[in-house]
Amino acid sequence: MSLPLRQVGENGIISRFRALAAPGLTADVVVGPGDDAAALHTGGDRVLLLTCDMVVEGVHFRRAWATPDQIGWRAMAANLSDIAAMGGEPAAAVASIAAPGDLPAEEVEQIAQGLISAASQYRAALVGGDLVGSPGPLVVDVALTGWVDEHLMLRRRGARPGDALLVTGALGASATGLALRQHMLADDGSPEFARALQAHHKPRPRLAEARAIAESRLATAMMDLSDGLAQDLPRLCGESGVGARVWCQRVPADPAALALAPKLGRDPLELALSGGEDYELLFTCPTAAAPEIAAAVLARTGTAVAVIGDVTDGTGVTFLDASGNAMAPNTGFDHFAAAAGGRP
Amino acid sequence: MSLPLRQVGENGIISRFRALAAPGLTADVVVGPGDDAAALHTGGDRVLLLTCDMVVEGVHFRRAWATPDQIGWRAMAANLSDIAAMGGEPAAAVASIAAPGDLPAEEVEQIAQGLISAASQYRAALVGGDLVGSPGPLVVDVALTGWVDEHLMLRRRGARPGDALLVTGALGASATGLALRQHMLADDGSPEFARALQAHHKPRPRLAEARAIAESRLATAMMDLSDGLAQDLPRLCGESGVGARVWCQRVPADPAALALAPKLGRDPLELALSGGEDYELLFTCPTAAAPEIAAAVLARTGTAVAVIGDVTDGTGVTFLDASGNAMAPNTGFDHFAAAAGGRP
Repeated sequence: MSLPLRQVGENGIISRFRALAAPGLTADVVVGPGDDAAALHTGGDRVLLLTCDMVVEGVHFRRAWATPDQIGWRAMAANLSDIAAMGGEPAAAVASIAAPGDLPAEEVEQIAQGLISAASQYRAALVGGDLVGSPGPLVVDVALTGWVDEHLMLRRRGARPGDALLVTGALGASATGLALRQHMLADDGSPEFARALQAHHKPRPRLAEARAIAESRLATAMMDLSDGLAQDLPRLCGESGVGARVWCQRVPADPAALALAPKLGRDPLELALSGGEDYELLFTCPTAAAPEIAAAVLARTGTAVAVIGDVTDGTGVTFLDASGNAMAPNTGFDHFAAAAGGRP
Repeated sequence: MSLPLRQVGENGIISRFRALAAPGLTADVVVGPGDDAAALHTGGDRVLLLTCDMVVEGVHFRRAWATPDQIGWRAMAANLSDIAAMGGEPAAAVASIAAPGDLPAEEVEQIAQGLISAASQYRAALVGGDLVGSPGPLVVDVALTGWVDEHLMLRRRGARPGDALLVTGALGASATGLALRQHMLADDGSPEFARALQAHHKPRPRLAEARAIAESRLATAMMDLSDGLAQDLPRLCGESGVGARVWCQRVPADPAALALAPKLGRDPLELALSGGEDYELLFTCPTAAAPEIAAAVLARTGTAVAVIGDVTDGTGVTFLDASGNAMAPNTGFDHFAAAAGGRP
């Protein structure tokens, strides 16, 4: 009996993919499926990184809410963030677009412009693509290469019990922007309103921050936050074979989430823990090294880094409230398990 | 005023993409958008190739006609063929799948199995991917890297007036298989019937043939036939700044097309000229070198190569019938300009 995708869920399917792909992986494959990007030996000290990320109209974006340029930017940014998560530098991208035949040609050009703008902002190039018809939604898929010195590469595996758990920046801004769109709230002219929409529609991948973390050589594991801390942290822990405790009071909620959550009837902490697409970095390092890494990232990029918890033995991830009691955050977005309440 | 995609057509949009992407291309980019694959300097003699190819349910395949395994195989084969067309060897692929939530998880695994089978058949590996929900059609996009010694790389540009125009194998088998499906013809048990369906559902990219052609160092330009000779040849000519004449009587129609065209009410020549997805190689070389290349390909791979025309000054592509009169073949598939008569 075969279950439908929405019952098996994303994590279930991905672990089955990995088992299927494993026998075909050659000695050149340093990192196969299951990390933010794959990594391949190509003969030198640097390894080639390769990742892809697909966005689908009605699932990841709506044309009524996002401009074509923003759709392109976001699709590229998600991939740039995957390269960042490995400690790498992006190089070349290809993009496939499935577009309804009645889509104005100008909008397809604007999507391409968004892809190209995001790429060039981070010194990557769009070097090719495919354009096909779609009888349904607009679909944009980007694949991106990158490079990283193998000894600097960071993976989801590597976190050790006792390590500190850190994030760059602040969380929940993108989820706040999405909620503003969902609730059709009128722009109140506040900087937080603009900040939330900007975070949602034109996220900034943390490439410079990731380089600073990788080059410190102090971090033990890293990934980017694309589906939300509550869903992504268990993935990092799973790869590392560890558990984690998150002290929710230390999780930095974005100013936009703090300011706008009341208007949205939401809890800023819930936006910060469960909101996807922040593209901040989640990483671990020995506790004693946390101040040094934080200082290095701040000095090089101006971005704050916060210790939000620690790595434990075992396999569970626990979110602790101010009293030290375990709480259950809403989990992040599952593309199949999620019901109508999901993105967007 | 912005025209809808279906009026601008695929070629129109792609040329506008190229113009948009051009300023962002760095010195590392040896080949940018507009060839079968992009090519990038990475520090050594070999260049890194990168391509992508997307297939959409209802446009490129129907779930009623193709097994999930075949859908995966075909998506990977299209990319392998792009690497072949540059003279390269495939390396690592990532695949993004947008799947309806009610799709049985088993079918997604079978798609992955098809992707992996095709990749491993040609010594490539599936190293990562993305799986997202789709409110509409099933979409599979593959991006594939490859490598080629720069001095062996072949491009669409490079054909010179006076060159011979050649194809590997025979044309029209895939279009015949598609037509069999469209007409819902019952399997007559003939080898040609099976051959046509095999060509359509599990095409064999011509990697070994492409290597033989590239290593001969005699070819001047190459591409793969994915949209049909009538549509693809003008692209090669456009890139090379030349014209071409095709002697239609010399175009090798596949045995399956020859045997089954009458049952389908089709002309085998039309299937050979206009049918897409044969994934044969179209290439040019000095006329005097044609026998040597053909012999080398045959000796190394067992695949026949046919001279089907020649390269001319100017820009037009002419198809000549047995009497030497110009004829107008149906053009190949345009994802947007094509009406209901298109694929599948």
